[in-house]
Amino acid sequence: MDPRIEEHARIVVEWSTEVKKGDLVGIRATPDSHDFVVALYKKIAEKGAVPITLMSTEEMDRAFFDGADDETISIAPKQFEALLEKVDVVIAVRSPSNTKAMASVDPKRVIQRSIAMKRVMELYLSKRWCLTVHPTNALAQQADMSMDEYQNFMYDATLLDWKEESKLLYKMKDHLERHKDIRFTGPETDLYASTEGRIWIASDGKHNMPSGEVFTAPVEDTVEGKIYFDIPFLQQGKVIEGVRLTFEKGEVVNFSAEKAEATLKEIIEVDEGSRRLGEMAIGTNRGIRQYTLNMLFDEKIGDTVHCALGRAYKDNNGTNESAVHVDMIKTMHEGEIIAGDELIYSKGRYFYEM
Amino acid sequence: MDPRIEEHARIVVEWSTEVKKGDLVGIRATPDSHDFVVALYKKIAEKGAVPITLMSTEEMDRAFFDGADDETISIAPKQFEALLEKVDVVIAVRSPSNTKAMASVDPKRVIQRSIAMKRVMELYLSKRWCLTVHPTNALAQQADMSMDEYQNFMYDATLLDWKEESKLLYKMKDHLERHKDIRFTGPETDLYASTEGRIWIASDGKHNMPSGEVFTAPVEDTVEGKIYFDIPFLQQGKVIEGVRLTFEKGEVVNFSAEKAEATLKEIIEVDEGSRRLGEMAIGTNRGIRQYTLNMLFDEKIGDTVHCALGRAYKDNNGTNESAVHVDMIKTMHEGEIIAGDELIYSKGRYFYEM
Repeated sequence: MDPRIEEHARIVVEWSTEVKKGDLVGIRATPDSHDFVVALYKKIAEKGAVPITLMSTEEMDRAFFDGADDETISIAPKQFEALLEKVDVVIAVRSPSNTKAMASVDPKRVIQRSIAMKRVMELYLSKRWCLTVHPTNALAQQADMSMDEYQNFMYDATLLDWKEESKLLYKMKDHLERHKDIRFTGPETDLYASTEGRIWIASDGKHNMPSGEVFTAPVEDTVEGKIYFDIPFLQQGKVIEGVRLTFEKGEVVNFSAEKAEATLKEIIEVDEGSRRLGEMAIGTNRGIRQYTLNMLFDEKIGDTVHCALGRAYKDNNGTNESAVHVDMIKTMHEGEIIAGDELIYSKGRYFYEM
Repeated sequence: MDPRIEEHARIVVEWSTEVKKGDLVGIRATPDSHDFVVALYKKIAEKGAVPITLMSTEEMDRAFFDGADDETISIAPKQFEALLEKVDVVIAVRSPSNTKAMASVDPKRVIQRSIAMKRVMELYLSKRWCLTVHPTNALAQQADMSMDEYQNFMYDATLLDWKEESKLLYKMKDHLERHKDIRFTGPETDLYASTEGRIWIASDGKHNMPSGEVFTAPVEDTVEGKIYFDIPFLQQGKVIEGVRLTFEKGEVVNFSAEKAEATLKEIIEVDEGSRRLGEMAIGTNRGIRQYTLNMLFDEKIGDTVHCALGRAYKDNNGTNESAVHVDMIKTMHEGEIIAGDELIYSKGRYFYEM
């Protein structure tokens, strides 16, 4: 077995989910992540814990949607809930063999199913949980890479000294929380928001592996100015690129995109909340050197910031509500991040590197 | 998808487990059976039921055994039990990618684990359950076949008109239960047992797919005579071949094997019950034309009988207790099966074909 798979499993078991003696663990995986699941089993057993694995693929989901009528789609999977009620830890492994198997399913039916899965999601989030990735050809293809390249990309992003990363992320959280606002500047960009009463969260690999970001929910009606997001991202199967947004009193008053502007327009017009920001964040993972159209990685790229239109997180004390939460990313090599009177980042360096 | 996979799924969902509206279904499968699981999902959804799938492989089991100490091995998987408590139907799919991944694990530890899994097994058997097979290279290899050959073998055995098979099996059960004893004759064979007070079970594809046998538990101390089992079988990783057994008052008083006699001796000497028969049975599946060292198939071969040393089934009103249950098979093309004064089978024909 590739020793990186074993190291990845060690990080997820020891750092992310802190599996300990007597824990009952639930894993959600695909056939393509079998090697990683085998590595997880050994590590989990070494901790004195007992794993069980659910197999879930987009092809299986698709077959369910193809076979089920609307009544069946609305049945809650009580057996899944019963399993989750018993576990202490959940590890979800994203490792698709085909990212487009669900492409032609009516999105309304997908939403209907997700409503039936609400309790599953609540239970999942109430545990020590971690979402991670195991490299597959489907993910490599989505990233325009060979499998070998993608494996290198993925493990460079993941096999970090997370204790050390965590220290830096918490240092950044501390500095950001000394101030009451945040400002992103750079080419075609000068965006300001109040963060008074809001919490900055250091995402240090507990719930996402890889991770590496510090994020908050801005005070909704205080967002002012403009920003240019230069990194493409995927929404509704479309690659949206070169997004420019202008805010007044927290609302988007002007927008454009170099590609797929119609899709951007649809997103902004979903509801009241989708024209406001639910998140402002700083990416810190220097192991990630390029975007791959996979938000789990892209939003953590080092020397970037990102903002999300739509739903805010309660954990940030955010209040914005929306059916959507759409992240957009900007590289900051030529920009600055300023909190109150403190320079948090400037042209390639975080404050603790200055 | 191979249309035989869809037909196999239809038979398991409609005939074996009779999945109906509102059922919660649990599937246990491997990465190699993903296609079959996809076919099951569609059929299950069409019935208005909701499936969930556990991924379980010998490689995963092996990693758990490699990592776990004796204390960990004894922890009951409560999350697995919780899931099984909720389901109405269990479908277990045997489709290994390597049948020998557990070969070097201490059998004592495997037994220790199976004790911790006792409640799981009880729950499993309390549901509408079916054990079936999806073709893999590992199974083909074990059967000395190519994958294509093995697929043909497997679907010939499985894609039968089970309603029609069931009629014949129940007819045979009725005839056998009119009498109080059973006798198998043929080359080097004349074996007699009382079946008074015992139940003959028609195995018509509900719990095993494929199936095709009628079996009972003989009255333990009435087994008399000798029998020659000409079909090889696998035990403890060894192929045992050409077994001859002689019984007096229900106990083995003489035995030999043309191959692996030492392993046969070990089996017979496990405990008191392992020197007596726990099962006598008639195989009826004419779709199975050769042995493959896989008991799920081999014991159902048409024109055969089989006997098991060891544990009897309570459902037969059997009383023999033992840690083992080892089936051995004899072809009957030159033999006869007689119940009381009735000829049940003679040289290639069951009574309903005479």
